Order: sequence, then C-alpha cells, then structure tokens
Amino acid sequence: MGERDKVRRMREMRKDAMEIFTASLKAVDPIIAVKKHLSLDGDVLQVGKRSYDLSNYSCIYVIGCGKAAASMSYALEDILQNRISGGIINVKYGHTKDLKYIKINEAGHPIPDEAGVEGTEEILALLHGLRGNDLVIFVLSGGGSALLPLPKDGISLVEKQRVTKMLLDSGASIYEMNALRKHISKVKGGQLARVAYPATSISLLLSDVVGDRKDVIASGPTVPGESTFGDCMSIIEKYNLKLPESVMNLIKKGVNGEIEETPEAGDPIFEKTFHVILASNIMALKAAEQKAKELGYNALILSSAIEGETKVVAQVHTAIAKEIRASGNPISKPACIISGGETTVTIKGKGLGGRNQEFVLASATEIAGMSDTVILSCGTDGTDGPTDAAGALADGLTIQRAEKLGMQAMEYLWNNDSYHFFEKLDDLIKTGPTNTNVMDVRLLLVR
Amino acid sequence: MGERDKVRRMREMRKDAMEIFTASLKAVDPIIAVKKHLSLDGDVLQVGKRSYDLSNYSCIYVIGCGKAAASMSYALEDILQNRISGGIINVKYGHTKDLKYIKINEAGHPIPDEAGVEGTEEILALLHGLRGNDLVIFVLSGGGSALLPLPKDGISLVEKQRVTKMLLDSGASIYEMNALRKHISKVKGGQLARVAYPATSISLLLSDVVGDRKDVIASGPTVPGESTFGDCMSIIEKYNLKLPESVMNLIKKGVNGEIEETPEAGDPIFEKTFHVILASNIMALKAAEQKAKELGYNALILSSAIEGETKVVAQVHTAIAKEIRASGNPISKPACIISGGETTVTIKGKGLGGRNQEFVLASATEIAGMSDTVILSCGTDGTDGPTDAAGALADGLTIQRAEKLGMQAMEYLWNNDSYHFFEKLDDLIKTGPTNTNVMDVRLLLVR
Repeated sequence: MGERDKVRRMREMRKDAMEIFTASLKAVDPIIAVKKHLSLDGDVLQVGKRSYDLSNYSCIYVIGCGKAAASMSYALEDILQNRISGGIINVKYGHTKDLKYIKINEAGHPIPDEAGVEGTEEILALLHGLRGNDLVIFVLSGGGSALLPLPKDGISLVEKQRVTKMLLDSGASIYEMNALRKHISKVKGGQLARVAYPATSISLLLSDVVGDRKDVIASGPTVPGESTFGDCMSIIEKYNLKLPESVMNLIKKGVNGEIEETPEAGDPIFEKTFHVILASNIMALKAAEQKAKELGYNALILSSAIEGETKVVAQVHTAIAKEIRASGNPISKPACIISGGETTVTIKGKGLGGRNQEFVLASATEIAGMSDTVILSCGTDGTDGPTDAAGALADGLTIQRAEKLGMQAMEYLWNNDSYHFFEKLDDLIKTGPTNTNVMDVRLLLVR
Repeated sequence: MGERDKVRRMREMRKDAMEIFTASLKAVDPIIAVKKHLSLDGDVLQVGKRSYDLSNYSCIYVIGCGKAAASMSYALEDILQNRISGGIINVKYGHTKDLKYIKINEAGHPIPDEAGVEGTEEILALLHGLRGNDLVIFVLSGGGSALLPLPKDGISLVEKQRVTKMLLDSGASIYEMNALRKHISKVKGGQLARVAYPATSISLLLSDVVGDRKDVIASGPTVPGESTFGDCMSIIEKYNLKLPESVMNLIKKGVNGEIEETPEAGDPIFEKTFHVILASNIMALKAAEQKAKELGYNALILSSAIEGETKVVAQVHTAIAKEIRASGNPISKPACIISGGETTVTIKGKGLGGRNQEFVLASATEIAGMSDTVILSCGTDGTDGPTDAAGALADGLTIQRAEKLGMQAMEYLWNNDSYHFFEKLDDLIKTGPTNTNVMDVRLLLVR
C-alpha cells in the first residue's frame, strides 16, 4: 500500500472513530436519558417500572447538582411543564439551559466556592419546608459533590478543602475519603434526603463512577451512608492526619453521640426515596459497540471500569491492537476495541493535558508505524483536565507527522504536555460542554 | 450461596485454572515443539516447509544457548541420533538434560559469568573450523543473551555489565540497549552466523520476547542487526552516557571503520541461514484457550504482548472481571480471560517476589469479596523473579483468608513482598524448571 493510500485509510478510520464516539455521547445525553426513563400519561408519572399518581401530591419540586443538572431539569420541565412548583439546581459556571420553573445557581467546579455554598443553603431552605404529600425529584450527576458544598457548622469551606487535600496526599482510598467528607458535610451521605423527608423523593442519577455505586455519585446526598463517625476517627488515626481543630472537634462530638450520624440503610426516610440510574458509562460503550458494528467493525467492549495510571493502561490497549494484527485475537480485523472508566495521571512534567489526551499520546508512541490503527479517547463531559479539549485522536502515522513538525512525542509525554502536542497536529477533539458526564470513552480501531 | 459452597466453587475454579495453565505449558514444551516442526525421513530432514538432504552434508553440529537449549538438544538427538557430529550449548546452572553427542556448559543467568564466556569461546572455536558442506542447527531461547557472553577484545565482562546497568538507568529503549550491546559483543546481532559461514545453518527459536522479533530473541546471534556503530554513538550522546574508556574506544573505532560492523540484511551469509520459531507466547495462550473451552468456559485471548507496570496491568485485568460480572462484556460467564507477555515491577519495598506473584497479589486486592473469580499468573520458565516459585493463585476470598492469618494485603503489596504473602497462604505455584521460556501466562476466571 502506498503512502497516499495509507493516509486515506487513516482518514477514513478517524472519521469512523469520531462517528462511533458521537453515537456513544448521544446514548448518554441527559435529555434523551430522562425521556427514555420518565413519561407522563394523564396524572400518572412513569419512572422506570414505578408509577406515581401526581394527583396525590400537593407540590412537585426539582432539586439537583452536577454537570448534567441543567439538561436533566430541562427534560423534566418538558415532561411535567407547569406541574413543577419550583426547584433549585447548582451547576458549573456555563453549564446552563433556559429553564422556566427551576432556578439555576452557577457555582465553582472542581474547587467549590461561596456561590456553591449559598446555593446549597437555598436548597436546604426549600427542602425544610416540605410536607408528606410533596414530591421531590433529585437530579444528581458527576461534579455534584463539589457543586453541593456545605460544611457542618463551625467548619469553613477552606478547612473542608484542606481536609480533602490532606486525604488525597495521605494515600487514603476513595472510600475512606468519602467517609470523612460525608461526615464533615451537611448534605452528603443521605443527609439531603433526610432534610426532604417526609416528602416522597425520586433520585435520577447520571453515573460518573466506576461500578455505578449510588452512594458515590455526587457523594450520595440521597443514599444511605455506610460509614460512621467512629470509622472517621479510625481513618484519622490510620493515616495520622493532622486535621484542622474544628474538624477534629466535630468528629469527636460525633463519636460521643453529641451530633447526629448520617442516616443509614433501614432508616424510615429511605422508604419514601427511590433511585434510578438514567445513564452510565456502559450505556455509552454499548452505543459505541452498536455503531461500530454498523460501520462494519467487529466490536468488543473491554470494560467500563478501567482505572489506573494512564500510560500503562495505554500500553495494555495497544498490546491488544498488536495482537489483533498478529493473530486476530481477541477479535479479528476490522476491529473496534471499546473501553471506559477513568484513568489517572501522575503529573511529573509542567505541560498541559488531561488523562484522555495523555492516553492518546502514550498510545501513539506504541502504535507508531501501524498505518491500520487509530486511537481515540475523550471525556464524555467535554472537558479533559484543565483544557478546552474533550480528548484527542491519533493513528499509526501520528508520530511520523509530529516529527516532521519537529516534535518528539516522548518529550511531550514526559512533560505531560499532550495538549500542545495534539494542538499543533490539529488532533484535539473539542466538543464544548456536553451537559452529560459518564466518565471516558476510549476507542481502538484496527483495519 | 453459603460460605461453604463459595469455598467449594473457588476450589473447583482453582483446579480449572491449574489445568488450563498446565495445558499452556505443554503446548510450548521444547521437546514437543522440536518434534512438531522437525522430522527425519530417510536422509531428508524436514524443518517446517523446508527439506534438507542430509547426504549432502559432511558434518552436523548443534550449537545453542538459553533456558530451553538442553531440551531442544535432547529432542534433536532423538531425531538425528548419531548423525550429529557434535555440538556445544550454554545453559543456566541446573537446566540440563542427559545428552549423548552435545556438550553442555552450565553458566550464570541472569548475571553472566566466566563459565559463560569460556563456553562461548569454545562455541566460536568449533564454528571457526566449519566448511561449506557442514550443517549447523542453532537452538536459541530466552536467557540466551546472558548465557552467550563474549565482549569484544579489550572489554571485560564487568565493563560490559556496567554498560547494561547504565543503559537501564538512562531510560534508553530496549532497541537502543540492544544496539549498543550487540556492538560490544563478539557474537550477538548476527555475528555468530558470520562465524559459522560458509556452513549452512538452521536456527530453531523459542520466543521469549513480545512480538516474537527474531533479532531480539537471545539478542539475535544468527539474525542481521539493524543498527550501526554510528547509531551507538548517537545513543551515547542522546543519553549523555559516561561509558568505560575501553567501550568508547571500541565504538569510535567502529565509527571510523577500523573494525567490522555487525552483518546486515542482504549479507551473503544470510542466504545460507534459515530461521523458524518453534514456540511462542501466543501458542501457550491458544492452548490455554482450547483447554478453557473444554472445561466449559467462554475463553478470550486478550494479548500475548502485554507489558507495563504490574499493578496497573492487574487493575485493567480485574476491571474486565468486574465488567464480566456486571454486564457480560467482553464475554459472558463462565469466562476465562487469557493474557501473556511480560510486565515490569518498579521495586520500592524490600520484600521478595516476582512480577507474576505481584500481579496476583495486586489483583487479589481488587477482587476481594468476588467469590466467583480466580486469578493465576505464572512464568512459563518456572521461575518468577528471585524466587523458587513460578507464580501464584488467588481468588475472591484470598484477602479475607489472609486477614484471618493476620496479613494485610496492601502492606505486602507496598513492600513488594508477594512471595511471603502467598507462601503463608500456600498459594505459590512451584513447577520447578520447565526447560521452556515463552514469557508469562495470566488467567482470569469468572463463573
């Protein structure tokens, strides 16, 4: 095959990859997802397999937080119209929609700010007034944890952030981190549901976490917590954490039973709450699988739960590409390997990038010369790290093309500077905010 | 399912895993592999699709190195009997067989020693005397690089080892390392074939390298090199290597054309050499796939080319196990995921272990509680790191069982002490030397 034919094939495959990614995004669009799970027939609201006779309820409120909150609310307004009495959602700056009945508070993400705190106080004030014949629909999605910040009395937002930073540095697991964060918060770990009680509530969840654990999505404000103040104290001792005095005092009071625990499973409040996951990473991957098959590829979903250091995860993916070429395993050509989840990047350089762009750059170095292979990785929320890109696209000729422009891929990789690498190649994928968030989608095409 | 039933299921699955691994080992047994590819009918020796009329050859010699050299030679003696005029092989201490016509030199591995140097000199002396109507059968396998050590004149073995160490520390790629090592050596990079010329030669290869590159197996003593002394100088400058003076002088002489280059493709000597790969990692994986199917599992070969940091590779494998349980992707239960290649371990602790045992320990922490999942990882050569184990076996109840014995898995993992972890659990796999070497086999069973 001549050089020109190779370039043409790569171009076609890149187009396929973009089409497959677009299909996966569409499958987890919050508006489509809400309308797929909720429908109104007369007075009856169908939510999955459950039905709610709205004539039994006095008022209906929509409360929420996260990157998809505006879109989910938009869909709810479209379904319920003026049956919605009101509502408040906290969203990331810019992630808004035109809403008629529900108030939008824009706030800081990933670093929470005072606007987020004020919005959360407003939400609590609304929920405090509810009665047993009211209905609340919670719309919860990724980013909701930072967008619903309200430390317990006596703890400042800055102190709360210091705790998060210390936990991150300590090597504590995500479960240990969440245990502490939930107990410092006024709303997380089921506490928001407790405030809404005795109203009936429905939580609509868009999952951005591995394993789709409801208590982890947006730190589970309407889901029973599994940890106690006693667990928090054990974690503090285990990692020898020097937490702010206000936080230590709070935990001690909690251990002594002087302040209320987060509600646990079996608490009566959860008899009036119901949760449904509207969209998750695996749904995006399944849509990608279907589109890949339509385009003539043999498709295989590896896993929606991929975590770990990005460079190594890229090595495993490209090892599969090499095997497809060498022996037709795990599937034969034309092949599309699909994976999801969320990897991590240990930053050692001073460049600009995100886990998706770094995944594509690391993969590009491994597939150099393989002019039948294309790699794509994107965040479904439209942002990858502190950049305006969602991810990037590369093929077996990318490294060669970069060298012609005077770029050594390994240097960019060592410097964690994938953004500038792909910017020069015009291979960044920019979707803008997608208003959804179900982690990442990775595609590996071999033809 | 009760606790006792879970334990029983785990026990059955462990037995399946061992049976699948044993089948994969058998498929790459050097004796079986040699007999599969070579046969003698009257005077005609069939080697793959080629045939050699032995009546045309005056003498037949067997020369070789590597962990499988003794077994491969044993099979050749069985086929060719007293047609073999003689031969010499360098093997790792203890990796011997009873041979009748071929001399065995035991030598140091992975650190080469003087016994290896003397054995190599003996091999060169034999090859120097060959004529155009002689036939040499080379048996080359993993470990052959360290077992065939002979630095060029003026360079000591210690200096050669220092160069290897400096290259390892520099971040040079395996290709850059090989370029330098081949040019410092008297035999690597096709130079052994040059000494054997004008005799006809057949190289029988057992691949222990990702991608089965013939120039990489045992550092390709009978395969044209792709690098030059000029490349070596560029590498030295690129990484700013302060190599021993003797080595620098040699490279400079080479650049100035004062000493001979390694032979390159197109050199007449390669018209009389023929190479065949008898066994490789993918063959082991395919045998595992077949056995898994026989045992009723849906089987999927991920890749024979998996490299990268062990802990992260384990995360990716267990993410697949989680997806199999959650959504039936990439294959449905009962499932057997099979992978090969060779991972690396960045040692930070002071414990004892190998990449396979660490893979199983890291995986065990990820599958804790999943009482339908079993993980196995073993080196096909029967040794894993500096231990007497080939690998280890774990299941979803392993972490719980370890805790009852007072062991915290994460502490053993941080200390790179997988050997002592599995030793206490009696979960080490000890095969003893297998006399083969096609990298590692990993199995992931979900039922």
